[in-house]
Amino acid sequence: MASKSVLTPQSEDFPRWYQDVVAKAEMADNGPVRGTMVIRPYGYAIWERIQREIDDRIKLAGAQNAYFPLFIPESYLSREAEHVEGFSPELAVVTHAGGEELAEPIVVRPTSETVIGEFMAKWIQSYRDLPLLLNQWANVVRWELRPRLFLRSSEFLWQEGHTAHASYEDAQAYANKIHLEVYNDFLNEVLAVPTFLGIKPPRERFAGAINTLTCEGMMRDGKALQLATSHELGQNFARAFEIYYQSEEGQAELCYTTSWGSSTRLVGGLIMAHGDDQGLLVPPRLAPTQVVVIAVRDEPEVNEACERLQAQLIAQGVRSTLDRSRGSFGRRVTDWEIKGVPLRVEVGPRDLNEGVVSVTRRDNGEKLTWPLAGVAQEATKLLATIQRDLYARALEWRDVNTLDVPSVVEAIDVAQTGFAKLSWDLVGASEEAQMNNEAVTVRCLQRADGSIPESELENDLLCIVAKSY
Amino acid sequence: MASKSVLTPQSEDFPRWYQDVVAKAEMADNGPVRGTMVIRPYGYAIWERIQREIDDRIKLAGAQNAYFPLFIPESYLSREAEHVEGFSPELAVVTHAGGEELAEPIVVRPTSETVIGEFMAKWIQSYRDLPLLLNQWANVVRWELRPRLFLRSSEFLWQEGHTAHASYEDAQAYANKIHLEVYNDFLNEVLAVPTFLGIKPPRERFAGAINTLTCEGMMRDGKALQLATSHELGQNFARAFEIYYQSEEGQAELCYTTSWGSSTRLVGGLIMAHGDDQGLLVPPRLAPTQVVVIAVRDEPEVNEACERLQAQLIAQGVRSTLDRSRGSFGRRVTDWEIKGVPLRVEVGPRDLNEGVVSVTRRDNGEKLTWPLAGVAQEATKLLATIQRDLYARALEWRDVNTLDVPSVVEAIDVAQTGFAKLSWDLVGASEEAQMNNEAVTVRCLQRADGSIPESELENDLLCIVAKSY
Repeated sequence: MASKSVLTPQSEDFPRWYQDVVAKAEMADNGPVRGTMVIRPYGYAIWERIQREIDDRIKLAGAQNAYFPLFIPESYLSREAEHVEGFSPELAVVTHAGGEELAEPIVVRPTSETVIGEFMAKWIQSYRDLPLLLNQWANVVRWELRPRLFLRSSEFLWQEGHTAHASYEDAQAYANKIHLEVYNDFLNEVLAVPTFLGIKPPRERFAGAINTLTCEGMMRDGKALQLATSHELGQNFARAFEIYYQSEEGQAELCYTTSWGSSTRLVGGLIMAHGDDQGLLVPPRLAPTQVVVIAVRDEPEVNEACERLQAQLIAQGVRSTLDRSRGSFGRRVTDWEIKGVPLRVEVGPRDLNEGVVSVTRRDNGEKLTWPLAGVAQEATKLLATIQRDLYARALEWRDVNTLDVPSVVEAIDVAQTGFAKLSWDLVGASEEAQMNNEAVTVRCLQRADGSIPESELENDLLCIVAKSY
Repeated sequence: MASKSVLTPQSEDFPRWYQDVVAKAEMADNGPVRGTMVIRPYGYAIWERIQREIDDRIKLAGAQNAYFPLFIPESYLSREAEHVEGFSPELAVVTHAGGEELAEPIVVRPTSETVIGEFMAKWIQSYRDLPLLLNQWANVVRWELRPRLFLRSSEFLWQEGHTAHASYEDAQAYANKIHLEVYNDFLNEVLAVPTFLGIKPPRERFAGAINTLTCEGMMRDGKALQLATSHELGQNFARAFEIYYQSEEGQAELCYTTSWGSSTRLVGGLIMAHGDDQGLLVPPRLAPTQVVVIAVRDEPEVNEACERLQAQLIAQGVRSTLDRSRGSFGRRVTDWEIKGVPLRVEVGPRDLNEGVVSVTRRDNGEKLTWPLAGVAQEATKLLATIQRDLYARALEWRDVNTLDVPSVVEAIDVAQTGFAKLSWDLVGASEEAQMNNEAVTVRCLQRADGSIPESELENDLLCIVAKSY
């Protein structure tokens, strides 16, 4: 019924399909300054749901939100050598303010380890102040030469956690806790995206980290997307910013710090992990609108039934939107399909006479007829089913497209369309460079059982290699 | 019992008292770049509560959240003449990015009328797209020469609403709706601050507005604080950014736009509208922690009772924090007083034996003894009473310190310690200049019945004059 030609098919041109979805689902636009992004209301409503879910988990993990300045003195970045080297090419610099040239240029934060390190040093006195567990929701700027909405933008929105600990073990354990209980739980349970967990190989680490944990997801074109990362910073930033604490024995000791982040890139991940040729597919637990109630005709009886239904759904805790706009019915259906709303309930005069409504699942197109009185309860049940089905579909996609291979050459071949898994022992510096020349990277190292290793030096590690965003 | 000497008394030095509260309640610190601010976890928790309450009201009023870029091409600001003149002296300018000098300098947004105007012009086609009701939560930068934490900072956090309408009347009605149903309702019902509502005199208007509505509150030193403003922008920005719509008759018509904002300045307002010599006083509906449960001693029986109590309070929907830290009891009590938590419940072994706890109201110091089993219900009732009492106390303070005066000279005199109310007819350009020389300004114009006039040209208007932050 709905027109199928609104979007470029995925199989024809996946990047173009992505652009089409972002535009037609009214998710985002390019901003006037190169690489910046306007997040439109529907895209932002999804981001707000992501924020709420991640923020709840961060608070459960014991971290508190705070806010640090956008502007950082240029000299701060230089204090950690690898950090400044990693970020210098991407910085935006303020040289004039208040009508005058500044004595010291100011950097627009690309990330906040440095400025937060400065304040941790002030706030931490003794072991009683540890661990110090902070998080902030903020915008950051990293100049992008090849920007892409949500995936790589010069300004993006994110949360960045920053913690300080008395021991290496405590820091490591907390980075792991965040990685599993915040990021991976959100990704699996809410975003419905199965992940490969592991650590980054040294050359892919965050600038200044001693270890970087990552969650890698597979998109519908077989490429990888890094969805969230958690960094063990060792004592690198503590040394640079003099973050000391007095131990129980009265000694001045250097702290161990961590940082961890997830961003508006997750919206890009949502689009590419679940979307199909009809548009987005938003998992019910994430969806700003879980059910759209559509009045088939603009008649008083139909409108009243829709309003009653909408009230029942909301009372049942279902996020429901009522569509009684007067445009073409077919066009409205297509628009809700593109936006990926999980369930569509159509209320028409003939069905009403029979006391039923007609229901369509976005994920598989299945059509159902429900008695009017039972819609709210049936919807709640079916939404839970759709959530599970979307995860299962994504997991199957990932597993079918992840192959064990015995060599780097075959890994490069498999990585043209999916993920390759091979022994990390086969990948030396020259093999990694060889892959990188083919735009293939080591996404993560993991143990044979899929768990997260402590270091790349463990024996018998596997690595996942793929093309990526 | 609690030490009374932690803060400078208000009567001795109000600005110093304010600084002391901000520091000792761990609300905020100065950032490393002049005028920037670090919002610490307790200050941010209050801001999050403010955000939630205002955001809920904005959504009820029909506006949708979106996000527009931090960076604005410098040329955009020049398109509206008054706007660029008003903001030029406060701009921060990015001249270098990605390692190169930029062809066109980029301005860090001081407010977003211009960039949002550009996109409204793209998104609005016909009268069916109107009204377009947008809001964003963001950071903005206005270079400050005399910064003060929360009140005037070079970077601050805020929400800015931006709407486009088909008619002047619709735009005006919506600005009024936001002003009353979002801002004034939040200020009165949640922040417990009584307000004078009115319009700004022409010289105090937002740069580019044809009319500015304001909510003015009285602080504990008798000065005024502008708590939120809503602007009718007429067709000024619509003309500058060519925001046209096609009318039902098929004609291209220029839109009317509005903008409206409230910021982290509200945290400063909270501190100064309610605080006393012992610190903050946070109204219960706003408080991140409404009740603190304090274990008087670190004993198993006491700790268990505290945990049960805490669970009961949370089950009852009370935002409760459990303090079982082992520091000095007196010091802990003082800290919670400074933070302004409305109710303190102390659980000690002797009281436990009698099945009671001892309760202290932060606002008036009243001490009560409650049976353990009834704490959650009693707390809920008492929190509602405290909310009303704080508003009543603030209203009485404002009314006692607001005097009707018959002349500008007497207005200047009264404005040394409070608000003066006089006929707007008495205030010509030279009288307004005379007051401004004495650091006294016209805060708002209102009708005799306190309602908001449509324009400064109405007959029989009154004006409120005061010193201000």
